[in-house]
Amino acid sequence: MISITILGTGNVAQNLFEAFLASDTVTMIQVVGRNIEKLNYFKTRASLGTYDDELKPADIYILAISDDAIQEISHSLKLNGLLVHTSGAMPLSILSTHTRIGAFYPLQTFTAGKIMDFSMIPICIEANNEKDTQLLNELANAISSTVKRIDSQKRKALHLSAVFVNNFSNFMYTIGEQICSENAIDFSLLTPLIEETAHKIKSIPPYKAQTGPARRGDQKTLHTHLALLKNKNQREIYTLLSNSLKVMYTGQNPNPKNQ
Amino acid sequence: MISITILGTGNVAQNLFEAFLASDTVTMIQVVGRNIEKLNYFKTRASLGTYDDELKPADIYILAISDDAIQEISHSLKLNGLLVHTSGAMPLSILSTHTRIGAFYPLQTFTAGKIMDFSMIPICIEANNEKDTQLLNELANAISSTVKRIDSQKRKALHLSAVFVNNFSNFMYTIGEQICSENAIDFSLLTPLIEETAHKIKSIPPYKAQTGPARRGDQKTLHTHLALLKNKNQREIYTLLSNSLKVMYTGQNPNPKNQ
Repeated sequence: MISITILGTGNVAQNLFEAFLASDTVTMIQVVGRNIEKLNYFKTRASLGTYDDELKPADIYILAISDDAIQEISHSLKLNGLLVHTSGAMPLSILSTHTRIGAFYPLQTFTAGKIMDFSMIPICIEANNEKDTQLLNELANAISSTVKRIDSQKRKALHLSAVFVNNFSNFMYTIGEQICSENAIDFSLLTPLIEETAHKIKSIPPYKAQTGPARRGDQKTLHTHLALLKNKNQREIYTLLSNSLKVMYTGQNPNPKNQ
Repeated sequence: MISITILGTGNVAQNLFEAFLASDTVTMIQVVGRNIEKLNYFKTRASLGTYDDELKPADIYILAISDDAIQEISHSLKLNGLLVHTSGAMPLSILSTHTRIGAFYPLQTFTAGKIMDFSMIPICIEANNEKDTQLLNELANAISSTVKRIDSQKRKALHLSAVFVNNFSNFMYTIGEQICSENAIDFSLLTPLIEETAHKIKSIPPYKAQTGPARRGDQKTLHTHLALLKNKNQREIYTLLSNSLKVMYTGQNPNPKNQ
């Protein structure tokens, strides 16, 4: 049995809370936060606390708060045990005012009010000694079927990769939605295409799955599309991504003078 | 009963063939192509032909070939009936040497060797007279539960939107895969995140679903990421997309001198 305390009340904290509560090898000691309204979510099912309290003894304290608050909050914490954060971008060293430290990074995007099936979510773990790494491994395996030891440097690269596949892809969806909206087209027509594009890469590497006018070097369609885009920023994005794809797939250099 | 002939032997042609064959309101007259090897796919289940033949009588001829071949091939066709292409980018007028013309655009990405469930694929139809539009509507309803009348101008905008949500998103996956590969990280760790990002927009508009350092205006993480990217083109893409997101969400102008 592993005893844990969750520090934080946001989407990640709520999702971890639900997953750990459903596991019979984890005991929930406390949920700690500063936002009373958000702490309400947990009140009937956990003992609550604030960051200023002397925290109750637990094996692992999980700091599930935003990146820019980790340093300040962790400095003020009075605890005995293993302290881990859940950030993809932050190294272990950000917790260095404590002795036993680690990371417990669930590689997923969490949405307010939506509880995810944690068994499918990869968890990347790291600690500053082997015994604690094993403890985190045990904790992660209690809720997920994919647990990986990833050090701070690799975690940073993984987080950068996640920015491309998640944040930037979602931005592409937003631009697609704007184009539909400007042309009175129902954006939901595109959802089967979006889902299939994401699904496809499980069986075909994305480099091989690439299609479209830029991959084919189809200048005529590229020019038609640019003429359709009224927004300067959208034209810039279309041009840069199309030119990059052309170079990648056809070896064509779209702007020889600039090289 | 609607009788049809498919012209073309690629992924779209194969997928349409399977969908129509499974429908009991459509009769397959012929599959026509120039690539003997690809025609083999159909030979036990359809009468075959080449583009130079006088085509057998059919209600609708579906030209499922690449955009840049439509004009030339359609000019050479000897047929009587409604001729439609399956292109998102091309207007009806590209078929104008024929009298009864239209478009039958399935909004999906097709992969060699993979047969899709057509009932979930939106089909956008257009014809140059109301009777033929109704005929296409009937044909599309035989295989799909989402059929929309979309004129050439709107279809072009829809295709442009599809380039962003499909081609460009897939390119983001490729860059994510490259970053993983350079750092000896298993890219499949990211597939649950990729699928959830795509799935999410069915319940939350992408504009609202956006997360990440650029949306938050988190300069520290943005600089860390740029320092990690060794590839000049990847740095350019990261910078342009992050700056665009920052302007969109925080109103911050990242490069006041350039405006």
